[in-house]
Amino acid sequence: MRAVDIVIKKRDGHELTADEIHFFIDGYTRGEIPDYQAAAWLMAVMLRGMTSRETAELTLAMARSGQTLDLHDIAPLVVDKHSSGGVGDKVSLVVAPLVASSGLPVGKMSGRGLGFSGGTIDKLESIRGYRVNLSVDEFRAQLQQIGIVLSGQSMDLAPADGKLYALRDLTGTVPSLPLIASSIMSKKIAAGADAIVLDVKVGRGAFMKTVDEARALAETMVGIGRNVGRRCVALLSDMNQPLGCAVGNALEVKEAIDTLHGKGPADFREHCLTASAHMLCLGHKADSVKAGEKLAAQLLDSGQAWTKFVALVHAQGGDVEVIENPSLLPKARLVKDVPAPGGGYIAAMDAAEIGMTSAELGAGRAKKGDPIDYAVGLLVHRKVGDCVSAGEPLFTIHADDEAKLAAAETRLVAAVEWSNAPVQPLPLFYGVVE
Amino acid sequence: MRAVDIVIKKRDGHELTADEIHFFIDGYTRGEIPDYQAAAWLMAVMLRGMTSRETAELTLAMARSGQTLDLHDIAPLVVDKHSSGGVGDKVSLVVAPLVASSGLPVGKMSGRGLGFSGGTIDKLESIRGYRVNLSVDEFRAQLQQIGIVLSGQSMDLAPADGKLYALRDLTGTVPSLPLIASSIMSKKIAAGADAIVLDVKVGRGAFMKTVDEARALAETMVGIGRNVGRRCVALLSDMNQPLGCAVGNALEVKEAIDTLHGKGPADFREHCLTASAHMLCLGHKADSVKAGEKLAAQLLDSGQAWTKFVALVHAQGGDVEVIENPSLLPKARLVKDVPAPGGGYIAAMDAAEIGMTSAELGAGRAKKGDPIDYAVGLLVHRKVGDCVSAGEPLFTIHADDEAKLAAAETRLVAAVEWSNAPVQPLPLFYGVVE
Repeated sequence: MRAVDIVIKKRDGHELTADEIHFFIDGYTRGEIPDYQAAAWLMAVMLRGMTSRETAELTLAMARSGQTLDLHDIAPLVVDKHSSGGVGDKVSLVVAPLVASSGLPVGKMSGRGLGFSGGTIDKLESIRGYRVNLSVDEFRAQLQQIGIVLSGQSMDLAPADGKLYALRDLTGTVPSLPLIASSIMSKKIAAGADAIVLDVKVGRGAFMKTVDEARALAETMVGIGRNVGRRCVALLSDMNQPLGCAVGNALEVKEAIDTLHGKGPADFREHCLTASAHMLCLGHKADSVKAGEKLAAQLLDSGQAWTKFVALVHAQGGDVEVIENPSLLPKARLVKDVPAPGGGYIAAMDAAEIGMTSAELGAGRAKKGDPIDYAVGLLVHRKVGDCVSAGEPLFTIHADDEAKLAAAETRLVAAVEWSNAPVQPLPLFYGVVE
Repeated sequence: MRAVDIVIKKRDGHELTADEIHFFIDGYTRGEIPDYQAAAWLMAVMLRGMTSRETAELTLAMARSGQTLDLHDIAPLVVDKHSSGGVGDKVSLVVAPLVASSGLPVGKMSGRGLGFSGGTIDKLESIRGYRVNLSVDEFRAQLQQIGIVLSGQSMDLAPADGKLYALRDLTGTVPSLPLIASSIMSKKIAAGADAIVLDVKVGRGAFMKTVDEARALAETMVGIGRNVGRRCVALLSDMNQPLGCAVGNALEVKEAIDTLHGKGPADFREHCLTASAHMLCLGHKADSVKAGEKLAAQLLDSGQAWTKFVALVHAQGGDVEVIENPSLLPKARLVKDVPAPGGGYIAAMDAAEIGMTSAELGAGRAKKGDPIDYAVGLLVHRKVGDCVSAGEPLFTIHADDEAKLAAAETRLVAAVEWSNAPVQPLPLFYGVVE
């Protein structure tokens, strides 16, 4: 078998066999197939597409390109969740302890964030002492003992994906459905997931701008799951405006804590209940999404989810005092409300702009390895459809620098569109693919 | 400007600007753009195509990527020819001295051959002493003195093309019309051609298998010429069977010598007269192709073309005695006729098989740098449409090894298809594109 013949076959629009895909991915991972052949192949995949069978094989080949985690000695059924990422997406901070408090073990390995704000583990690091670099042994032991882990990647999950992703970024081959879907799914499968709830964000602040695009990605991922024997459910959720109020690391942790106390913004709470319900269903803790939502609300309102979160933070070395008294979280030097410039209905909020404003304040990374300021960010007080009076606080900016604060203020005001006539609120979800 | 954005623009099917193409080619030539970005770009070009404007800019960018030759102080109008290559294609050996003997200077830099047999300069090297590695100064001086040079590439013509071609070979991006056409044309332009006769071969022994494919390539090349101010004419010529009789280096030199003496196979002579006529027209030595053919026949039959060939061989250090007495050319140890296995009309000859048989005997190279056996090869005595009696000699094999000779015999017999009913001879040309 020759790499160039596999490139040519895909170039000509033919379906690759499982053997060909595994040969190519294994050879590339080992450095036997050079970057330039992989680059030509990626462009051919991008322009010719892949069948669902090919996409599933690509996922498996990448999942098996390095170490894989098998947690079945600890958890008979491993349920995971993945979010395609958005502005104010602190869902894992609530859903993981919530689901774990039902008795379903949740062990998540997350990457660091790029773009709008940090990832889940960046957010958790705003809790003094919280360790995200657990060894695999520590990961397993903790999952066994308390049924929950939220850690960084303690092992090189799906190294082929990491290598291919870096190449895609440089060769204009990022926006390909089979490549995006297999990249996400390969890491989840390598991390040992049997069932996965996929939160596919749609809208201005998301990678997928339209429901159709998001549905296509969701269908591709659910199709991979079907082909490789993993049960998957994908939620198409709104990302035209930020989720909840808080955008920024410590601010989002605080909002997650509020929510774990049965409070927090209504939209964020509802999103967490729905996502949890699907995980509880996949994990056989609920018979229906409706029953799952009811159970999730109980776990939240009874304090069980909160207790699990405290156990998590304690187990990973975080200062429990900080989460019990969130005023001890990192605090920005400058806090300023941004009032509504006039009255009216909010017609639209540019979630991407709001996310970028938070990143510019220091909450996000422009590139891998950049430092993050845990304290900075912003709060979004009103949402699309709300009727707002002139002068009412619309945002609160948490900044560390006067110039950045002023720039953020201008940018946030410009990110809101107004209407004199009433406007429908945005839905939280656009559909479910399973 | 970023290389990845140029890849993305082409990936999405947009037309690149001249600046973008030059930026990409220059950056790649200098090693600032890595192979993997070039590979992704090549695949995008292959699958999305290029407009005629883009193809012309790509040609110019490659032509200007290294040194270029300007011969206008020696020849006011430089006419060149290019053949896409085929089995028994010794046309340059006749056409170059023929055209030069009209007073139109012909200075050709040729590459070595790959595949079926050697290239023009490999064939010339079967003449004892013939030097193909002239310096640029020697090239210019000889063109000035005798009006003809047939040499190897004394300078690094269009290095971007060389680098891209090597990458295309490894990334499945060879068969792209704009890439093939710009590759050919960039070297001709770098070598200083003002007008070019393009001999595009069609059929079993050619890269282009159908007249439509060949016409598309011809139109692309002629279009480049138009866009960059070079007059081009493309001949679509038959390569379903070998051209002339001889296949192999010294054997082809002998056939060229015969032809320069006004003899030689009829098909080969006619092909040379037509190609010469188009060059004479482009060089303003004839008003029409018809007049050009008449002039070409005169130059051949009067011995002027032969005299120019002798001057060429002498000037480049070749042993003139060898060409005056071709029995002094390298001779194979074993010479054997292959008789027709039965009688009938020849319905088809697989030119590629015949070419490969010659290469297997040692006349061609499998890869760059392989040695060539100048003596070996074969003669094709009958052509498609000929009525042949059983036992009549069909081929003569010139070999250096019994086993190879036996293998060649089997292969040649199998390369001929027979018919009981009369068969139309193949045309020499399928059309002209200008």
